[in-house]
Amino acid sequence: MSENFHQPVDAAKVPRFAGHATFMRLPAVTASQGLDIALAGIPWDGGTTNRAGARHGPREVRNYSSLMRSTHHVFKTEPFKVANIADVGDLAVNPIDLQDSLRLIEAGVAEIVAAGALPLCVGGDHLATLPVLRAVARKAPVGLIHFDAHSDTNDTYFGNNAYTHGTPFRRAIEERLLDPRRVVQIGIRGSIYGPDEHDWAIAQGIRIIYMEEFSRRGPDEIMAEARDIVGEDPAYVTFDIDSIDPSMAPGTGTPEIGGLSTREAQQLVRLLDGLNLVGADLVEVSPPFDLAGMTSIAGATIMFELMCVLARQVDRNRKEGA
Amino acid sequence: MSENFHQPVDAAKVPRFAGHATFMRLPAVTASQGLDIALAGIPWDGGTTNRAGARHGPREVRNYSSLMRSTHHVFKTEPFKVANIADVGDLAVNPIDLQDSLRLIEAGVAEIVAAGALPLCVGGDHLATLPVLRAVARKAPVGLIHFDAHSDTNDTYFGNNAYTHGTPFRRAIEERLLDPRRVVQIGIRGSIYGPDEHDWAIAQGIRIIYMEEFSRRGPDEIMAEARDIVGEDPAYVTFDIDSIDPSMAPGTGTPEIGGLSTREAQQLVRLLDGLNLVGADLVEVSPPFDLAGMTSIAGATIMFELMCVLARQVDRNRKEGA
Amino acid sequence: MSENFHQPVDAAKVPRFAGHATFMRLPAVTASQGLDIALAGIPWDGGTTNRAGARHGPREVRNYSSLMRSTHHVFKTEPFKVANIADVGDLAVNPIDLQDSLRLIEAGVAEIVAAGALPLCVGGDHLATLPVLRAVARKAPVGLIHFDAHSDTNDTYFGNNAYTHGTPFRRAIEERLLDPRRVVQIGIRGSIYGPDEHDWAIAQGIRIIYMEEFSRRGPDEIMAEARDIVGEDPAYVTFDIDSIDPSMAPGTGTPEIGGLSTREAQQLVRLLDGLNLVGADLVEVSPPFDLAGMTSIAGATIMFELMCVLARQVDRNRKEGA
Amino acid sequence: MSENFHQPVDAAKVPRFAGHATFMRLPAVTASQGLDIALAGIPWDGGTTNRAGARHGPREVRNYSSLMRSTHHVFKTEPFKVANIADVGDLAVNPIDLQDSLRLIEAGVAEIVAAGALPLCVGGDHLATLPVLRAVARKAPVGLIHFDAHSDTNDTYFGNNAYTHGTPFRRAIEERLLDPRRVVQIGIRGSIYGPDEHDWAIAQGIRIIYMEEFSRRGPDEIMAEARDIVGEDPAYVTFDIDSIDPSMAPGTGTPEIGGLSTREAQQLVRLLDGLNLVGADLVEVSPPFDLAGMTSIAGATIMFELMCVLARQVDRNRKEGA
Amino acid sequence: MSENFHQPVDAAKVPRFAGHATFMRLPAVTASQGLDIALAGIPWDGGTTNRAGARHGPREVRNYSSLMRSTHHVFKTEPFKVANIADVGDLAVNPIDLQDSLRLIEAGVAEIVAAGALPLCVGGDHLATLPVLRAVARKAPVGLIHFDAHSDTNDTYFGNNAYTHGTPFRRAIEERLLDPRRVVQIGIRGSIYGPDEHDWAIAQGIRIIYMEEFSRRGPDEIMAEARDIVGEDPAYVTFDIDSIDPSMAPGTGTPEIGGLSTREAQQLVRLLDGLNLVGADLVEVSPPFDLAGMTSIAGATIMFELMCVLARQVDRNRKEGA
Amino acid sequence: MSENFHQPVDAAKVPRFAGHATFMRLPAVTASQGLDIALAGIPWDGGTTNRAGARHGPREVRNYSSLMRSTHHVFKTEPFKVANIADVGDLAVNPIDLQDSLRLIEAGVAEIVAAGALPLCVGGDHLATLPVLRAVARKAPVGLIHFDAHSDTNDTYFGNNAYTHGTPFRRAIEERLLDPRRVVQIGIRGSIYGPDEHDWAIAQGIRIIYMEEFSRRGPDEIMAEARDIVGEDPAYVTFDIDSIDPSMAPGTGTPEIGGLSTREAQQLVRLLDGLNLVGADLVEVSPPFDLAGMTSIAGATIMFELMCVLARQVDRNRKEGA
Repeated sequence: MSENFHQPVDAAKVPRFAGHATFMRLPAVTASQGLDIALAGIPWDGGTTNRAGARHGPREVRNYSSLMRSTHHVFKTEPFKVANIADVGDLAVNPIDLQDSLRLIEAGVAEIVAAGALPLCVGGDHLATLPVLRAVARKAPVGLIHFDAHSDTNDTYFGNNAYTHGTPFRRAIEERLLDPRRVVQIGIRGSIYGPDEHDWAIAQGIRIIYMEEFSRRGPDEIMAEARDIVGEDPAYVTFDIDSIDPSMAPGTGTPEIGGLSTREAQQLVRLLDGLNLVGADLVEVSPPFDLAGMTSIAGATIMFELMCVLARQVDRNRKEGA
Repeated sequence: MSENFHQPVDAAKVPRFAGHATFMRLPAVTASQGLDIALAGIPWDGGTTNRAGARHGPREVRNYSSLMRSTHHVFKTEPFKVANIADVGDLAVNPIDLQDSLRLIEAGVAEIVAAGALPLCVGGDHLATLPVLRAVARKAPVGLIHFDAHSDTNDTYFGNNAYTHGTPFRRAIEERLLDPRRVVQIGIRGSIYGPDEHDWAIAQGIRIIYMEEFSRRGPDEIMAEARDIVGEDPAYVTFDIDSIDPSMAPGTGTPEIGGLSTREAQQLVRLLDGLNLVGADLVEVSPPFDLAGMTSIAGATIMFELMCVLARQVDRNRKEGA
Repeated sequence: MSENFHQPVDAAKVPRFAGHATFMRLPAVTASQGLDIALAGIPWDGGTTNRAGARHGPREVRNYSSLMRSTHHVFKTEPFKVANIADVGDLAVNPIDLQDSLRLIEAGVAEIVAAGALPLCVGGDHLATLPVLRAVARKAPVGLIHFDAHSDTNDTYFGNNAYTHGTPFRRAIEERLLDPRRVVQIGIRGSIYGPDEHDWAIAQGIRIIYMEEFSRRGPDEIMAEARDIVGEDPAYVTFDIDSIDPSMAPGTGTPEIGGLSTREAQQLVRLLDGLNLVGADLVEVSPPFDLAGMTSIAGATIMFELMCVLARQVDRNRKEGA
Repeated sequence: MSENFHQPVDAAKVPRFAGHATFMRLPAVTASQGLDIALAGIPWDGGTTNRAGARHGPREVRNYSSLMRSTHHVFKTEPFKVANIADVGDLAVNPIDLQDSLRLIEAGVAEIVAAGALPLCVGGDHLATLPVLRAVARKAPVGLIHFDAHSDTNDTYFGNNAYTHGTPFRRAIEERLLDPRRVVQIGIRGSIYGPDEHDWAIAQGIRIIYMEEFSRRGPDEIMAEARDIVGEDPAYVTFDIDSIDPSMAPGTGTPEIGGLSTREAQQLVRLLDGLNLVGADLVEVSPPFDLAGMTSIAGATIMFELMCVLARQVDRNRKEGA
Repeated sequence: MSENFHQPVDAAKVPRFAGHATFMRLPAVTASQGLDIALAGIPWDGGTTNRAGARHGPREVRNYSSLMRSTHHVFKTEPFKVANIADVGDLAVNPIDLQDSLRLIEAGVAEIVAAGALPLCVGGDHLATLPVLRAVARKAPVGLIHFDAHSDTNDTYFGNNAYTHGTPFRRAIEERLLDPRRVVQIGIRGSIYGPDEHDWAIAQGIRIIYMEEFSRRGPDEIMAEARDIVGEDPAYVTFDIDSIDPSMAPGTGTPEIGGLSTREAQQLVRLLDGLNLVGADLVEVSPPFDLAGMTSIAGATIMFELMCVLARQVDRNRKEGA
Repeated sequence: MSENFHQPVDAAKVPRFAGHATFMRLPAVTASQGLDIALAGIPWDGGTTNRAGARHGPREVRNYSSLMRSTHHVFKTEPFKVANIADVGDLAVNPIDLQDSLRLIEAGVAEIVAAGALPLCVGGDHLATLPVLRAVARKAPVGLIHFDAHSDTNDTYFGNNAYTHGTPFRRAIEERLLDPRRVVQIGIRGSIYGPDEHDWAIAQGIRIIYMEEFSRRGPDEIMAEARDIVGEDPAYVTFDIDSIDPSMAPGTGTPEIGGLSTREAQQLVRLLDGLNLVGADLVEVSPPFDLAGMTSIAGATIMFELMCVLARQVDRNRKEGA
């Protein structure tokens, strides 16, 4: 069946630095029909309160995703053989109007979902995950595995502004897009606005795993607990690049030292394998603050890891369905 | 009288790299009362449609303004002896709400004006000049000398968005803040959206001087014409750093090659001397895209040149008033 | 007729930082049929003897060409309305085999020529121009307007290596691709290997205009002479980005201070208008040595200027043919 | 009581990129009276023997300390509620005269001490710690916890120069400012000048913990030993940023690979809690060698961690005193 | 005996930033006679298929090796006292001709070997190790300890190109330069071209230790196994800088996240002590992609560590021979 | 005769990126005997009052001087055929002791002078020119052509410090090393400490040519006057890289916008030809503030231009002497 699947450009025929920059060097397509996984950019950072720049994330992650090859060296999975994957381009956004952008992003993801594909989006700032959740959780709240330095469950900012990249998961819970008892946040750290900053989240049932706990227990144990929390029902994965240490991912708006190593991050993502995922995203890669593409390389690799996990799920489901 | 004026820190006592970074190493004050010239930052880039970052402009221009000394080497003017000048800090802005920011900026400048001081603002993107004009032109339209690569007189963007950094001078004319027949734009260049992009501006009476005409005629002749156009009535000066060539000012959102040299820019600003100015600004310095502070150094120096022109006006007026 | 022409993405609907990076935000097409002008990358620097990196040029010039708009502000030409233009992708190359690359590049350009389109190529190092000339000058030698810091008419290098980015125009003359009496080189400068380094070129009839002569006489006079030399017969234009001063185009392998300003370079390219061109290229943009995209921005703008000249020729020819 | 304490600017009212850059966005004050903790810069690198630049450290650490929030996420300590803290500016230095600088720095710290405040200084190169110790250890030798890649106990340099950033702790012991049996150095590594380079220090009783031992034993065990060594008597903490790995803190003059991770560094600093500290410093942040502010961010965060430890001590002492 | 050995410039007399940049500040000599260890550069990256630049490696590693001092802080070895070491300059290469370069490099190393010195080479890309092996393994196949992110045992590339930096160890085995059962590869990771990419290598008997296994088992256990595999017979060590994590060594052509820390890398190299080595190299440092010299510093330090291991072997052999 | 002269490495045999980095790829020699021109580094910036880093200048100028070829393209001079030139290394300095450094530098240059060679030195900060003048003007005061943004004739700094990079030419006049009526300063600009800052210099008879006058009159006219002022008696040339615009030479401690273009700078240096020079220097290249080697490239090229002028003088003198 895979003979009809989209394949990346062959690096032994077209060098990695050649050709148009698409995600994973896959074909650029204009619609998600027939796809198992749709790779989409969300070039928007209208929710950013300090250092903007994540709007440039999709383009640079595409650029550096040229470094990815076709097979996962641990899973031995060949994602492009077991799933039909393509680059569906960037979702429409409005750089000047926040609410219009939220509508446009939701509509873009809804099209992917309607086509039966799993969305794997690259932001953009973390507020973009809110409209994605509106599209993937239309029927029922989903679970969430959330890698981040920040809980992003604040209430308002600058008066009554309810929509910033510090608030998406509070809104998502209020909108019943997430089941808070099936939400786990990993990598949280850094100074906070007050000793009670996370109280609301914890009161909802969110499990916050700070870096200090992660350091003590390690990826295996942490992910075992995370998988228990999320369970077998549909869940979403959101990976904020600032969960990774700023020495490894400096190109982001709100860096916090003492973060995950990329080695740990890869291990964490691989341990998502087997969950029942409705989509995933990678957010907050901000090229204007990056150094020599370091963050885009990390981002592209995490995206590849997420894609392999999704492809394995597609493969499993196809085989079970067969 | 100048014994009561604010003085910058003495570099022969405190090294240039030491101390808190304020504009020109002047004291930071909290109100404009008693000032002749108020140096204010506008850390906001909510009107930016492509590459954001000018929100960081005030801080970095402050940082590099430490390189400025106390006397203009051509005018021999000592601005801090002839005018009372201080750093009044950054105007309040709202990074998440465009209209609220426009209100806040106008209010901030209005306070400066009410105190009898001339505002010299550092942006921020060029939309910030609109609320500044609302504050300085409350009584009657003013003239404008506008250095820029772009005319910034577009109508709308992304549907019906009327307020971006590409539209401020159209809005200002519509709001009767500017007298279009007393507006001159210098340095305009670069590809445009259509052959008629500047027709509206020209129809209003704006005089657009493209780089090509500037190159042929030179600063002296161009400024003679500009001064004729603006005349003796109150006028405002706005200096978009992208009027300068991107090799000399790379840190900006919308670079266009073939721009002014800094040598030409300094000559142009000095030729403003003698006009009847109600204020001035420097905008679009975007540190995330800068290199080794090059743009902030250029910006700080242009700010110093503008400050000297304003200080000479204060001095003239004081002497005439005496 | 232009209703069938390819159009760039509309920046008022899709922000400049969004979407796939193609030349001028035009559609990516796979064949040149129906095109008037084919924009092609040549991601290859196998002829480079010192600092490699021009292989990355096409991708970054594409990236920054997003800053270009649809209309030339001096000509008022709308290139996409008067000519059918698209991005035909990168020509095939072989990063490991020089002679194979020369064959592949020639074949790629030959396809463009066979389709009736004018090639506008982005290198890659300057040796790439040799196979381009092999494709465009198959029937008869052509004239050449050559902007560069270096004459590139050396004989051999490192023993008997006849093919490097320092030799293409010697080879092209030997292969009768160029009529040396119709070749003019502008911007030549920098230390040389011996006092006789340019003797061979001059003996062939090439007109070398050093920077010093250019500085004295200026663009208008220089281009009047250059147009006389090239005449009305078919000619090719090659623009080495190192003709521009390294402060404005640092991202190149062999920088020489004292070069053209971008303002002069734009003026020179515009003065090509009206020649009988068979194609053009921009070479030696080397992103690994670039700073904040400065060289890619300059390169993309020069490419836009060249494209407008070619489009005007297409328009003239179509009208004359009509 | 805390209602009278200085508070940082509220980031929900003034964005982090706005306002004057002071340490932790606290008010700038001119004297230490009434303070519990005085944050002071020492913009001086006159003791540097290889790559200078730490003179620019205080300004950039101030700049990036804007990223800090008000509460420690592990301790839940709110330092600005339990201690009165402000930015007292930069101590006077003389960039041209080493001995004069040592006198000036000592005098500056002595004023802080006389006011009853704990000094938390940001260098500057490590020689600056010598005059700080002269001010804080006037009555009796103190203990020292010293995080560094280098022991800094050399004797002389370049003939008989006794005062460089490689000698401060030898001088401090000779001057009886430190009790060598209460000195512990953590993180020492890198090639040395001879097998006996550390013999003098060890002979004095200093406990040197090399990175290799640290790697084997881990932060908890190491700090348990360090606390035993220092005991309950007054002690000082000096944190050389080059103790952290150069991938996480590249902006320093004498980088040594194989260093502490920021995660380990934070853990180490937190384990200082409960000691009897007379002050602390952070040194050797050298912005000219930094990348995207990475080192200043790390430095500002370590400074925040140190400040929280000091604030908790102030709080404990106040409660005990009450 | 060491009084006749070459000594580095004394940093207490000539500052580290002064003087000509040679490896370890040793004298530059023109021949290897009398040396125990010859430090040589191989400024060549003709085998690179993606991002070139390693040709600039030797110059920058020389530059940053000025930071090295004379004594290993763990071994307490003084390499310049126990072995005669010098910088023999760069081996001849041909930047335009791959096969000629392979011949030249082999000849250059053969001279070192003939003089009785151990070669310690700095590349250059990894294909350079092939001609080095041709020189050091002329009599019999040797063992190999290979630190790398990639196995470099591919067969061909771009058609039938057998010689790239992805193929050297396949060629070396085919040419019987290596005994595959005595080859161990450590640090391998990253996406691969197919699930069978490493099958050939494994079938030959090569032991591939992926990063995941390394992370679980740690340096001590891994090196114990590696030493068992290599045994007491002659072996070569090749250290590809991309084995180290790109956050610590970004200046390389084919970065893969999740790599060795420098701390681990130093530990690994130290555990080579006692093997029977015929030479060593450090490859793939690519300065055009580096940041603030970070990769060159790491490379110079690894080179110092390798040099100390070789010097200890020289010392042992001399003592045993005595 | 030239067969015995030192020759640079042949770039057609050793690529420019290969080999040890010496000035102009010339041999490194240890004494000046037999030389006509001695190229020497002065790695010292102890006179710097703001941003240090020029101590790293010699090494990076050496590095980028690899880009220079053997023949001047305007003069057609082959410097290495008409003069015996070599790299005599860096003069001894003391990074910790200013007065000791002044003594060491004078002694180093005195050796060159004693050997009968002309010194061409690369700094280092501008205070280094004072000890050079002490060595070259031992018998009688010399004239000076001084390219700079700053007059460097201040009196004291920070109390009574008489020796900084802002004072060398005042000291030189006081010490009767310079004849002030034969001193001309070109390119002076930027804000000053007071309207009388240059009064002392002018009172001595120094001719200060500000950038504004230079812009009006141009290089030919300016240098005609400068040559008249200096006359036929012995003169020294000092070239501060900050005379060049910071867009072309950003790597310097005290940048001032509005400077010379490199094109103008080259023209100025060439117009020195025919003067009676006793030596020359290039100072204030500060690599830590540089971008992509831009300033070092400009510095190396200016050094090459100065060397050609000196070589032509050697050639003239030899022919006249013959």
